[in-house]
Amino acid sequence: MYFFVNDYNSICYPEILDSLKACLDEKNIGYGFDRHSDNARELIRKALDDESCHIHFIPGGTPANILGVSAGMRAQDSVFAVNTGHIKGHEAGSIEACGIKVELISSPTGKLSRSLLEKEIKNFDNEFTTKPKKVYISNTTELGEVYTKAEIMDIYDFCKENDMYLFIDGARMAAALASDKCDYGLNDLTKMCDIFYLGGTKAGFMFGEALVITNDDLKSDFLKLIKQKGAMLAKGFISGIMWERVFSEDDFYLKGSKIAYKQAKNLATGLEKRGYNLAYPFESNQIFVKVASKDLSHWKEISQFEIMEEKDSYYIVRLVTTFRTSDADVEGFLNEI
Amino acid sequence: MYFFVNDYNSICYPEILDSLKACLDEKNIGYGFDRHSDNARELIRKALDDESCHIHFIPGGTPANILGVSAGMRAQDSVFAVNTGHIKGHEAGSIEACGIKVELISSPTGKLSRSLLEKEIKNFDNEFTTKPKKVYISNTTELGEVYTKAEIMDIYDFCKENDMYLFIDGARMAAALASDKCDYGLNDLTKMCDIFYLGGTKAGFMFGEALVITNDDLKSDFLKLIKQKGAMLAKGFISGIMWERVFSEDDFYLKGSKIAYKQAKNLATGLEKRGYNLAYPFESNQIFVKVASKDLSHWKEISQFEIMEEKDSYYIVRLVTTFRTSDADVEGFLNEI
Amino acid sequence: MYFFVNDYNSICYPEILDSLKACLDEKNIGYGFDRHSDNARELIRKALDDESCHIHFIPGGTPANILGVSAGMRAQDSVFAVNTGHIKGHEAGSIEACGIKVELISSPTGKLSRSLLEKEIKNFDNEFTTKPKKVYISNTTELGEVYTKAEIMDIYDFCKENDMYLFIDGARMAAALASDKCDYGLNDLTKMCDIFYLGGTKAGFMFGEALVITNDDLKSDFLKLIKQKGAMLAKGFISGIMWERVFSEDDFYLKGSKIAYKQAKNLATGLEKRGYNLAYPFESNQIFVKVASKDLSHWKEISQFEIMEEKDSYYIVRLVTTFRTSDADVEGFLNEI
Amino acid sequence: MYFFVNDYNSICYPEILDSLKACLDEKNIGYGFDRHSDNARELIRKALDDESCHIHFIPGGTPANILGVSAGMRAQDSVFAVNTGHIKGHEAGSIEACGIKVELISSPTGKLSRSLLEKEIKNFDNEFTTKPKKVYISNTTELGEVYTKAEIMDIYDFCKENDMYLFIDGARMAAALASDKCDYGLNDLTKMCDIFYLGGTKAGFMFGEALVITNDDLKSDFLKLIKQKGAMLAKGFISGIMWERVFSEDDFYLKGSKIAYKQAKNLATGLEKRGYNLAYPFESNQIFVKVASKDLSHWKEISQFEIMEEKDSYYIVRLVTTFRTSDADVEGFLNEI
Repeated sequence: MYFFVNDYNSICYPEILDSLKACLDEKNIGYGFDRHSDNARELIRKALDDESCHIHFIPGGTPANILGVSAGMRAQDSVFAVNTGHIKGHEAGSIEACGIKVELISSPTGKLSRSLLEKEIKNFDNEFTTKPKKVYISNTTELGEVYTKAEIMDIYDFCKENDMYLFIDGARMAAALASDKCDYGLNDLTKMCDIFYLGGTKAGFMFGEALVITNDDLKSDFLKLIKQKGAMLAKGFISGIMWERVFSEDDFYLKGSKIAYKQAKNLATGLEKRGYNLAYPFESNQIFVKVASKDLSHWKEISQFEIMEEKDSYYIVRLVTTFRTSDADVEGFLNEI
Repeated sequence: MYFFVNDYNSICYPEILDSLKACLDEKNIGYGFDRHSDNARELIRKALDDESCHIHFIPGGTPANILGVSAGMRAQDSVFAVNTGHIKGHEAGSIEACGIKVELISSPTGKLSRSLLEKEIKNFDNEFTTKPKKVYISNTTELGEVYTKAEIMDIYDFCKENDMYLFIDGARMAAALASDKCDYGLNDLTKMCDIFYLGGTKAGFMFGEALVITNDDLKSDFLKLIKQKGAMLAKGFISGIMWERVFSEDDFYLKGSKIAYKQAKNLATGLEKRGYNLAYPFESNQIFVKVASKDLSHWKEISQFEIMEEKDSYYIVRLVTTFRTSDADVEGFLNEI
Repeated sequence: MYFFVNDYNSICYPEILDSLKACLDEKNIGYGFDRHSDNARELIRKALDDESCHIHFIPGGTPANILGVSAGMRAQDSVFAVNTGHIKGHEAGSIEACGIKVELISSPTGKLSRSLLEKEIKNFDNEFTTKPKKVYISNTTELGEVYTKAEIMDIYDFCKENDMYLFIDGARMAAALASDKCDYGLNDLTKMCDIFYLGGTKAGFMFGEALVITNDDLKSDFLKLIKQKGAMLAKGFISGIMWERVFSEDDFYLKGSKIAYKQAKNLATGLEKRGYNLAYPFESNQIFVKVASKDLSHWKEISQFEIMEEKDSYYIVRLVTTFRTSDADVEGFLNEI
Repeated sequence: MYFFVNDYNSICYPEILDSLKACLDEKNIGYGFDRHSDNARELIRKALDDESCHIHFIPGGTPANILGVSAGMRAQDSVFAVNTGHIKGHEAGSIEACGIKVELISSPTGKLSRSLLEKEIKNFDNEFTTKPKKVYISNTTELGEVYTKAEIMDIYDFCKENDMYLFIDGARMAAALASDKCDYGLNDLTKMCDIFYLGGTKAGFMFGEALVITNDDLKSDFLKLIKQKGAMLAKGFISGIMWERVFSEDDFYLKGSKIAYKQAKNLATGLEKRGYNLAYPFESNQIFVKVASKDLSHWKEISQFEIMEEKDSYYIVRLVTTFRTSDADVEGFLNEI
């Protein structure tokens, strides 16, 4: 049974468990004030090439999104998101539960763009609407796309011109950075937005995301916000040990994502060779492929995956690779379909 | 340097890491639908002697409190809590951030009681106040006290008579159950309230609490609530593996808490022998001791702890023991002060 | 200058001011517990032919919508609304500010329907989405349409089958009831939904809406909710006097709306005779007419109105009539365009 | 039957109704953009001697408090209030419903003070608490006290030193300004805080408060906030006409409050002459008098009032005067008790 359901199906890199084991006898203070967390933050700041950003370890993607969106918002402020955005349909109203309206923008792709934003913001120049104060994008997007540097900088410029912040959901930032389409690196990210995160859950960690704040306006009283949203682990040093381990070794953070990307590329190429059409262009470890309705049951017999949409004569199926996807997995699957 | 700061300073029971390691090669589905989580829930239901309760694994105490308080609440509903309650002063407005008012009740101890509640509820019979819909208590309390069964049942009866729910914050439920003062067991808990949790973070887990819902009214759509509050781990199977490991062995859940209790008892007895006065009666692994102002600097030289309050001539100091506190720790500390 | 901007541009029926003047020397208790409010509620219950419904006077449409949507909702519950719904784009995030997500449904008209709802609800059968608990519709709709009885009952049945409530925004309920398209009366309304309101602001009152609760589940503790949302007037007797005056005379509530409807009909007929096309079918006192881009400046010279949308070669313009729109207004305007 | 229940028991100054009647035939645009509202704002700015403040007309005290507290707040920010403050116990959780925690401060009086604030803020220097960002005081207080200018300026200075805003609930600001204890005037108020309101409901208006924003940080996007909180009247011109009428005549705004104050003074003096003790010093139109338990039934036979508290052998009773309280009311009542 081939497994392409998601990129969070295994515990973690073995090295992470080993590091935790090595610390079993320690006594550490709580809430992220320990030396491992301090060291991890320092290592990440170096990788980001930014000494002034603030870094907080958050247990998962939804709380990281809650925090990234909530930061710096007043009651009348809202956030722009694309209508396929994760905060729209996959987080059970988490943003609205914070009192914040998500103002949706239709897009032909999973991306926002400066031109879409410029058109949309014209609707908000009156007293009956919220004040758009932040733009939310995810990278990679929910459709597996990778933003280019120019695309993000255009959006960031738009934000600055319109008294808005740019927040990047980076649950799959490692997947973006590992893609051939990506024309920027870890060391560019803090210059490209006000707040973002480096995903851990989908990049080989047991759990956790590293939330990075680059805009000074958003830094103050942030620990209080984390505590309020229930996203401060008592044993913060566990996060600290994990991030310390991964960032203490050059390029470890992207190692698994590069494997996942290579296998995804093989998979996408193989599918197209066999006559399958992709629903969206291949850019990262999520592949969206059209499967004729009549073929679906065979696919289900030999593999596990998510069905995203049902069309008249076919399904859009998502295949996801991870750092543990092997050549045998990809070749075996391609041979059997 | 003796360490009595808190009960969440070490990673976890070594057995838990071993179990995780044993599962490194598995592929599991996400969000708690995996077989480890299913098995863990079944094992806990057996320990609770209640087949019908619902169990959800939550990453930490604050999100567990957010969920326990939010469950079943309408906009006009509020929650009663004692003025020393954790949700009052230690969670950065997490409950209010959900739109819910915490109606505080002054108590001479860290406990609520039927008589305090009966007196307070009289103030709410008008249109200018919230509707008290839930009572929040913590067991052990923030002052280290253990509720008796009769005390809890009195409060629970009050709740039923007043169209209210009882929620027990069980971050330290294991500490309560391990105390000589406790006249009930795991198998009694689901008959004593509408919703509660078994703490993991403070009972030897890496993180996590097991939230148990006994009242049918509160069970529906609960996964959606967990997701909304950012408290659903993608890799839910990690929680599942931890809880499965601990509850697959008889009495493992309380093993560490019993050690902590024994050491706390030795510590409390030793302190009293040496002429120290406790600020509150000794009942569990948190000891609150009065330390004369002149002695504080010596205490600080040899040990780490939290200062709870500064009085005219003394401090109230909190000493906390854990499953890793040894005879040598207690005796050494007592000898040096 | 002809004035067709909206239906809330004049103070009120003169009779209302007269009634207030007659009570200038009274002393009344506050918050709606006075005899005028009691009497007004009794009179409205008679007109509704429902002795058991609860009635509350609310200062305006937005607070009435906040209350109608908030009533009976838990944190994970959401409300369905059509994408042109007032609560979507015209209330500055008022529903989301209460922590409630509005789940939008696209509709080719301004109405929701059973079939649209049945299709949409299939997306919510998982843990990543809110629980749709209420349907919001407005009658007349934002596009001036009047729901038929069958249409509303179909939606109401859907709600009952799906553990949901139906809330009707009745800011323009009087306009709906005054329309030839309407096949129900005041005495039917409490059998058609769980909660709704009779608009006053847009029906000749100084301000205020009468919120009517028919479902027992939603009645309890409602005054507390009104107070919380800032919608309880201290001098509630002023609302009481207004509603008492209007409902103490047969058919007074609809008198103005019938005038407005008649004039709107004349206006719509006259526009079509003159070759204008309506953007949506004429059904009530709001007319949406297509005005060629080249004609707009002339229209602006002679009249005031709202532009709803700009298309390639024309504008969609809204003309609204009121109880004070005269034959001369309509004829004069038609002659001048 | 003498009536001392409250200061919002009659419709309004007759002059206000006359002004509304005079405008019955007008057509005005909505939401406060009309010429009456513009003129009223200009007149009030003159009375305040401040051309740069922003003024918004709000329907009542609770929504004015919601807005005054919400303005400029981020999720982690909280508001300090005295434990007798109106937003604590009399508004059904309205502030918490906005996601904002009210951090209560105990005070021997109904006032806050710089020293109380300085002591309290020390508890907030950690990650487990909210960030106090605003101070809420009411003037007069809920106990009828009038702040001196020095007291307010001390609090305002504290706010500036601690990155906080000062908001004054002015539901009874007219009563404060009419008191002999008051050492400032309308023209001082904008220099004494960041945001406040002039009460109308309790000063002879049908309804409404004039919210005044003096701090530039709080001015932006405020109409959006008003709309969101349901506090924007469609027929804003009705508020405009009322405030225009009152502020177009010198000293009209305080006229009624001065009558109320004079009568309250007579009443307080008379009570003390007759041997009654006041529970709090007489300072404004609210008098709190101790009535022996045995005397209460006689008091109830001849008058209406509110009982604030029941003590062992007496009650604390509140008597409130208004612009319509006459010499005969006061003398008659004093003679009969």
